[in-house]
Amino acid sequence: MFQTFDATNSPEQGPKRLTMLRKQMAKSNIDGFLVPRSDVHQGEYVAERDDRLAWLTGFTGSAGFCCVLPHVAGVFVDGRYRVQVKQQVSNVFSPVHWPETQLADWLSKNLTKGRVAFDPWLHTVQQVEDLSAGLLDTDLTLLPSKNLIDLVWHDQPDAPLEKAIAYPLKFAGETHHNKRHRLAAELKNAGQSATVITSPDSLCWLLNIRGNDIPRNPLVHGFAILHCDGHVDLFMEKTKVTELADHFGSEVTQIDPDTFIDHLAKLSGSIRLDKSSAPMAVASILAANDIEISYDIDPCALPKACKNQAELSATTEAHLRDGAAVCDFLAWFDENARTGITEIDLVKTLENYRRDTNLLRDLSFETIAGTGPNGAVIHYRVTHQTNRQLADGDIVVLDSGGQYLDGTTDITRTLPVGQVGNAERHAFTLVLQGMIAVSRLCWPVGLAGRDIEAFGRAPLWQAGLDFDHGLGHGVGTYLCVHEGPQRLSKTSHIALSEGMILSNEPGYYREGAFGIRIENLVVVEACPQKEGGDTHRPMLRFRTLTYAPIDRRLIVTEMLNPIERDWLNTYHQECFERLSPRVNAKTRGWLSQATAAV
Amino acid sequence: MFQTFDATNSPEQGPKRLTMLRKQMAKSNIDGFLVPRSDVHQGEYVAERDDRLAWLTGFTGSAGFCCVLPHVAGVFVDGRYRVQVKQQVSNVFSPVHWPETQLADWLSKNLTKGRVAFDPWLHTVQQVEDLSAGLLDTDLTLLPSKNLIDLVWHDQPDAPLEKAIAYPLKFAGETHHNKRHRLAAELKNAGQSATVITSPDSLCWLLNIRGNDIPRNPLVHGFAILHCDGHVDLFMEKTKVTELADHFGSEVTQIDPDTFIDHLAKLSGSIRLDKSSAPMAVASILAANDIEISYDIDPCALPKACKNQAELSATTEAHLRDGAAVCDFLAWFDENARTGITEIDLVKTLENYRRDTNLLRDLSFETIAGTGPNGAVIHYRVTHQTNRQLADGDIVVLDSGGQYLDGTTDITRTLPVGQVGNAERHAFTLVLQGMIAVSRLCWPVGLAGRDIEAFGRAPLWQAGLDFDHGLGHGVGTYLCVHEGPQRLSKTSHIALSEGMILSNEPGYYREGAFGIRIENLVVVEACPQKEGGDTHRPMLRFRTLTYAPIDRRLIVTEMLNPIERDWLNTYHQECFERLSPRVNAKTRGWLSQATAAV
Repeated sequence: MFQTFDATNSPEQGPKRLTMLRKQMAKSNIDGFLVPRSDVHQGEYVAERDDRLAWLTGFTGSAGFCCVLPHVAGVFVDGRYRVQVKQQVSNVFSPVHWPETQLADWLSKNLTKGRVAFDPWLHTVQQVEDLSAGLLDTDLTLLPSKNLIDLVWHDQPDAPLEKAIAYPLKFAGETHHNKRHRLAAELKNAGQSATVITSPDSLCWLLNIRGNDIPRNPLVHGFAILHCDGHVDLFMEKTKVTELADHFGSEVTQIDPDTFIDHLAKLSGSIRLDKSSAPMAVASILAANDIEISYDIDPCALPKACKNQAELSATTEAHLRDGAAVCDFLAWFDENARTGITEIDLVKTLENYRRDTNLLRDLSFETIAGTGPNGAVIHYRVTHQTNRQLADGDIVVLDSGGQYLDGTTDITRTLPVGQVGNAERHAFTLVLQGMIAVSRLCWPVGLAGRDIEAFGRAPLWQAGLDFDHGLGHGVGTYLCVHEGPQRLSKTSHIALSEGMILSNEPGYYREGAFGIRIENLVVVEACPQKEGGDTHRPMLRFRTLTYAPIDRRLIVTEMLNPIERDWLNTYHQECFERLSPRVNAKTRGWLSQATAAV
Repeated sequence: MFQTFDATNSPEQGPKRLTMLRKQMAKSNIDGFLVPRSDVHQGEYVAERDDRLAWLTGFTGSAGFCCVLPHVAGVFVDGRYRVQVKQQVSNVFSPVHWPETQLADWLSKNLTKGRVAFDPWLHTVQQVEDLSAGLLDTDLTLLPSKNLIDLVWHDQPDAPLEKAIAYPLKFAGETHHNKRHRLAAELKNAGQSATVITSPDSLCWLLNIRGNDIPRNPLVHGFAILHCDGHVDLFMEKTKVTELADHFGSEVTQIDPDTFIDHLAKLSGSIRLDKSSAPMAVASILAANDIEISYDIDPCALPKACKNQAELSATTEAHLRDGAAVCDFLAWFDENARTGITEIDLVKTLENYRRDTNLLRDLSFETIAGTGPNGAVIHYRVTHQTNRQLADGDIVVLDSGGQYLDGTTDITRTLPVGQVGNAERHAFTLVLQGMIAVSRLCWPVGLAGRDIEAFGRAPLWQAGLDFDHGLGHGVGTYLCVHEGPQRLSKTSHIALSEGMILSNEPGYYREGAFGIRIENLVVVEACPQKEGGDTHRPMLRFRTLTYAPIDRRLIVTEMLNPIERDWLNTYHQECFERLSPRVNAKTRGWLSQATAAV
């Protein structure tokens, strides 16, 4: 089993560890120290040795940070983690509502004068700039320092050293030689001599490699410098890539990561750096050596987001395989939902059906299986302590995904246990209407997620409802299930482009009662010229990748207009056509009923 | 007649005037000079003496600027004016596509080294900052100077000196004493000692006055300093306000405008200034006197945008009066459309029906009346040269509005001449569907125009169509018909708030063929709590202000879903109920037919 159900933190250690850290701060003549959740690569998942925030505080959420002062230690978490942080940290820590309370404001309220230190490898250039600006009018000095946690964490695990693999060309669709040289040409055009790549998913995409350094995301940790002649200096432990010499060829050179700083210092010309992902340390080393920095988006970010035909074919196949496994699960669910099973049973059974494909390499994230009120906890992860038995009348939110060599999946279905109430069915239908509106939308080239995400919400709005998360996130292909820069969110200004994969996942959550979410992955594609349409106005649309029935028992059919009904029936017909050859006879029978027209 | 149909510019004078300006530039040792369309108040309409751009170049559009260098003079205009500029300016001027080509880039391409001057009263702080940033890496120096046009324009008219009037409290709904003191409290709270008001609509709103200094907008030109104790220094010619002493009372002091600079120089404390509207000159004077500037939004902007109950009642009445006049016109149109009438006849007749109310003080903008291909020119203004006769099968875009003491109207209807083609009716119905979607939308408090404007476009998108203007603009009450900061536009991030008036005006334009636009004004109001809706999630919606039938002959009824049909029938029923008591028997008969259910 990839997924476990134990609580992984040790909050009872918090007070002792906090005392140790404060002693170290005093010794280092420091009044404040920042402990972020992030590692040097700014990803969503971190290796155990990098989980300094959980080690210190016990808080295990995927975002947040702690600011330790002599007399108070604030744990900054966002809306998703308000409840969790209170359950997880000891009372020597004070939860802070973030981003409503900004660090700079909190700092200047709790410390009138002094030195606040941070590890410059764990904070991005942008973060340090923002914090510096916030502290401008105070008597607080912000300064880089060694990581004080590492000095007091005596049994800190080692960095992961898992072997990287070459990612097959048939799935990647483009050689790393091609990728390196087309990005190098872009650097040259912009007058940039090199770029420093610090995001492991950019690195893995660029060099067509994958790894196993952290759970859930098939990444290998390392840094790289891509020069404008197409050569790459790869700063990664040799043992991780010894078998990749042939794959890399002569233009990718493995280099001892301990010499990364020396290599940075010797760069010349203008160096491209992404403010939102590059550690402050990298910028400081360049600046200290009078090397010009050109801030710009990571050159891998958009090419990686816009999947090529091979990647799209591969992930289409992965989605059908995954959809068939999900159907096996759904058929099982319908037989067993009222037999006293629990949330943990759902998670295990679903993982098992995915394992039965023999191609599952990992989950793409911790499965969310929330029944009844647990469904309203958007980032719910079931543990032995919270595990609930399914009860008659419940609805269950089941959000899960698999990592296959040919693709990354992410699907949410909401399922009824027995006879479900009218409020639930009404809300479910509104969520479905939003999901359909987005699925069938066409829009002019150039728009961003923020320009269209409201279509996923409007049916809920008309009923006085809404949900407090974005409509969708970018998704990689055998890479991160949360991938930037594309998003369907009010804050995303990146133009949607052909080949981008996104989730379309509206929901509704009634605290203490129930949750609803329906999620398909979709890919942006060109919309064929419409008859009578303007010829000078290229349009885009979504093609659906995810196939698995949407539960018809939760739909108030009369609420759907003919266009919505057609969409649903067509989608279900496609589910049957594509998945029925992939499932056994029993599931096929179930599928036939589950996809009947409404 | 308010509206005239003559061309108002003298492009044949362009070469001579350009030569005079260049001589003056040489005398002043200046290599480049900027001639904007704007006056010191940055409004959409300017007084004749301020129309330096039209005087020099002949270009009469409402936005743009000229940059004169020794050997080239670029006239920068946006997409709306690409055709017009070519017709209006002589060939000594070179039209430049703006904002695709930025001034800084054009300058550094056409001038390697030198001094570029601008009149600091005519450019905002933001504009100068942006241009300075663009010229950072060049050998061009940007410097403020006297206005060189004024030095060579020997018969430049005088500044307008029209008398201001007190705006009745029953329409304003709040005394200027109240307004001044609540804004003063806001300044005090922010630690600001005063604010400099340079936008005349802010000034008119704050002091409950109106004027007649420019056409179409009932503004009075002047500057003001609002102090944090509620006192106002009003820099305005005495003759304009001699009759307003009682209205102003003891806390508003008229001061000779020639002493404005001296008063600025004597300010102390932190002075609030709006970067996007304050002239650079004001900031420079404050800076030269070591006075602290706090850049922030004009404190009048949002209170002015959010109309109070009295303003809303007043403008509701103005809209019904205007709607009745429009109905009289529409009834006349239906009788006369095929009798050989022209666009000018439409403009004159409509103005006459509005004049018949005996309350029309001005048009709120130049009426747009475009038949056939002229309808596709979004900012079309008919002249004797362009005037077209209505032809069978044409559709006519008619966009117009009136200024009444109790409100400002803006309405567009698209009208058929005889039997109209299917392409036109199909597109008209899509435009109507977008307009209805926006009219009936509910959304959570906090969203901005950019979050919802796509609903006005989506039906067109699904057919491969779109339109190249925003969905809507803010509107004042007996103030500017184009009012900020609220807008329904992809670029507007200002939260929509109760009381804001906006236009909802989707369209479709097929170049060389026809144009379509349907426009109602709407006001943002609280959405009553829905049954079953979340109680912690306040929602907003639009209430429609504009009443006049939407032409049913242009609607493909089968394309409307039941919800859209209901909306249309309800709207038409309300048109009949509200307008029929206000029109004569003949129009009433027409209205009864025009508002019959579909």
